[in-house]
Amino acid sequence: MPTVRVTRRAHFCSAHRLFHDEWSDEKNREVFGDCSNPHWHGHNYVLDVTVEGPVDPETGFVMDLKAVKGAIDERVVRDVDHRNLNLEVAWMRGIRPSTENFAVAVWDRIAPVLPEGVRLQRVFLRETPNNSVEYLGPEGGDR
Amino acid sequence: MPTVRVTRRAHFCSAHRLFHDEWSDEKNREVFGDCSNPHWHGHNYVLDVTVEGPVDPETGFVMDLKAVKGAIDERVVRDVDHRNLNLEVAWMRGIRPSTENFAVAVWDRIAPVLPEGVRLQRVFLRETPNNSVEYLGPEGGDR
Amino acid sequence: MPTVRVTRRAHFCSAHRLFHDEWSDEKNREVFGDCSNPHWHGHNYVLDVTVEGPVDPETGFVMDLKAVKGAIDERVVRDVDHRNLNLEVAWMRGIRPSTENFAVAVWDRIAPVLPEGVRLQRVFLRETPNNSVEYLGPEGGDR
Amino acid sequence: MPTVRVTRRAHFCSAHRLFHDEWSDEKNREVFGDCSNPHWHGHNYVLDVTVEGPVDPETGFVMDLKAVKGAIDERVVRDVDHRNLNLEVAWMRGIRPSTENFAVAVWDRIAPVLPEGVRLQRVFLRETPNNSVEYLGPEGGDR
Amino acid sequence: MPTVRVTRRAHFCSAHRLFHDEWSDEKNREVFGDCSNPHWHGHNYVLDVTVEGPVDPETGFVMDLKAVKGAIDERVVRDVDHRNLNLEVAWMRGIRPSTENFAVAVWDRIAPVLPEGVRLQRVFLRETPNNSVEYLGPEGGDR
Amino acid sequence: MPTVRVTRRAHFCSAHRLFHDEWSDEKNREVFGDCSNPHWHGHNYVLDVTVEGPVDPETGFVMDLKAVKGAIDERVVRDVDHRNLNLEVAWMRGIRPSTENFAVAVWDRIAPVLPEGVRLQRVFLRETPNNSVEYLGPEGGDR
Repeated sequence: MPTVRVTRRAHFCSAHRLFHDEWSDEKNREVFGDCSNPHWHGHNYVLDVTVEGPVDPETGFVMDLKAVKGAIDERVVRDVDHRNLNLEVAWMRGIRPSTENFAVAVWDRIAPVLPEGVRLQRVFLRETPNNSVEYLGPEGGDR
Repeated sequence: MPTVRVTRRAHFCSAHRLFHDEWSDEKNREVFGDCSNPHWHGHNYVLDVTVEGPVDPETGFVMDLKAVKGAIDERVVRDVDHRNLNLEVAWMRGIRPSTENFAVAVWDRIAPVLPEGVRLQRVFLRETPNNSVEYLGPEGGDR
Repeated sequence: MPTVRVTRRAHFCSAHRLFHDEWSDEKNREVFGDCSNPHWHGHNYVLDVTVEGPVDPETGFVMDLKAVKGAIDERVVRDVDHRNLNLEVAWMRGIRPSTENFAVAVWDRIAPVLPEGVRLQRVFLRETPNNSVEYLGPEGGDR
Repeated sequence: MPTVRVTRRAHFCSAHRLFHDEWSDEKNREVFGDCSNPHWHGHNYVLDVTVEGPVDPETGFVMDLKAVKGAIDERVVRDVDHRNLNLEVAWMRGIRPSTENFAVAVWDRIAPVLPEGVRLQRVFLRETPNNSVEYLGPEGGDR
Repeated sequence: MPTVRVTRRAHFCSAHRLFHDEWSDEKNREVFGDCSNPHWHGHNYVLDVTVEGPVDPETGFVMDLKAVKGAIDERVVRDVDHRNLNLEVAWMRGIRPSTENFAVAVWDRIAPVLPEGVRLQRVFLRETPNNSVEYLGPEGGDR
Repeated sequence: MPTVRVTRRAHFCSAHRLFHDEWSDEKNREVFGDCSNPHWHGHNYVLDVTVEGPVDPETGFVMDLKAVKGAIDERVVRDVDHRNLNLEVAWMRGIRPSTENFAVAVWDRIAPVLPEGVRLQRVFLRETPNNSVEYLGPEGGDR
């Protein structure tokens, strides 16, 4: 059976800010610029979740995309859409919501709920039209 | 001289929330849904500003697009990018930051600074991939 | 109150074919080309519905976009998504499903269910990346 | 018969520069900036041509989109794709190739070849992701 | 010589349905949902074909993109555009036209016709704005 | 610390032509087609630069995206935007400006200025909506 990658895209809108609570306001502004604004800002995030596995000969699917969509909605979108990433997302508590950290956290939300035989290959997160991040998992760094 | 329309696009990221301070939390949630979240949410806004006028035979321009960009940056983007539309934008004070009201406010910021002979034709504001608004000005409603 | 236009975008996938049942296969192929293929073909349609009206000072809305979305979903998408436009859509019966006719039919589905004071301004339908159609309503032809 | 607008999109790549041959190099650079570079620069242009007319009850078409495509290809794209707009396009001779002037020239190329009963409604030309122009024809300026 | 990847994009429109002919209608609907509609549905597919190889020092090309386009057109697009993937495509006979299986079949159409020294690296197929698939070939599964 | 990839996108417009100065005009036209036009043509290039490294626990960044943007602007965009790639770019001298060679040259401009611990993972360059190239570096060819 050939191994294929399947990607499902989702959209959501969140507020956040970047800051380090042990740093002065000056240092926060120096490192994070406008992203440290204490009154928040926000983004329309684009999230691509890619899973990889053999194609099931009965269905022609690696995994039903409705199930991938379901996992993304229940494990990620429901918690972050129209929410504040710093204040309201239990699984982001204590994590600075940079796009990098956010992508890793999304990986940790999706990977455990995939069916056997299917592995999470990539989490891609676009924060603005020009800025994006991808995470290939704890063993994916050297590819 | 032919009359032509010229459009300049800009991008910015802001936080906001929709709520009515004379309404109960329940009514706010009923009318505005997740958009009323007191912890804010945000968007990557796309703004198109369209100006209209005769083509200058010397330059071939209706108006130098660098000047349109300058007006958008100085009169709008500088004030709203990485800002909270409810709390931090002087010219949005007292205005509920729906996309409709925001587009009208942007019109009022840009229209007065255009050179003579050029008129503002349209302000288009896209809040999410599926939701957008356009305003054709106080005399444009019946077109 | 300023008059503003608000647009909601929807996506759906349908099959169709173009043909005239009083014409020969040759004439159908001559006029409609590959679009007359008797085994069907299909598209990912993009639909923009634009409504126009005064901004409500209480909400800042012309009309709640959730209600526009609801009208699009119930009156259009539910009937056409993953359906055959020639065979399965009651309100397209007897109508050749060109993009032009489809846009007019969508107008007739949406216009009657809008709230008072809000008028349908435009139905835009993109059939392929390069082909699209817009309909401004029975009184909109001369704008 | 309802009146509908139909749009066909085309893509092409050209080189050009903006300059006024009666001006000094300094004045050209002051007015046109980098666009006056004597060694040229270029763009991937996006062109939308919109025609408007009644829907033919036999075909469901305002006009066969293959014919619109044919007019765009023969009257515009063939002459400008991979060409220098200042040096190689007969119908741009003596015209400064600003996007404004280019759009007007495209109008004049397309309007005369449309079939009776169909009128050219709009020429839209996008020069860069953020800069675009639209021309509604010699009688379209006041809409 | 550096090794570079070159991608050519193509667009086509097809009809299809997902179903298993040994299953009941109920089971087909349960597994494939609306995709099993016996009256078909369809998509605007986006296909990216990526080839990889050393850059030819004479031409600066890995492979002439016109030749990649030619292979895609002759081996894939000509057979599937405005066609029914279940009924009309010889090389899809007996293959359930899921996006996964379709991508593998496209690989098998393109790989044999590439010139020596150039290898097919990836077939990417987007079925809807939110659903896509990529196949890296029979030896590509573990990357 | 997880290893993450971060991508910054940039846009610029350039003129170029493809030709081999030891070949006849006929051979140049045969191999390069319209791309060999001696009067030049041009493109709106899209450039994605991807860097990879561990996430800094203090900032949540692999590398400050403002610094990636700075490197792209200073080392690439400043030299090529509104410029002629054959005539005006010192670091393209003697290099045929195919997209392949251009991507390799961009790699060589960016790689040396990245901070320690961060490596350049990918340069992606889109020349037209349908044609693009990616380079994974001198050791990246076999991935």
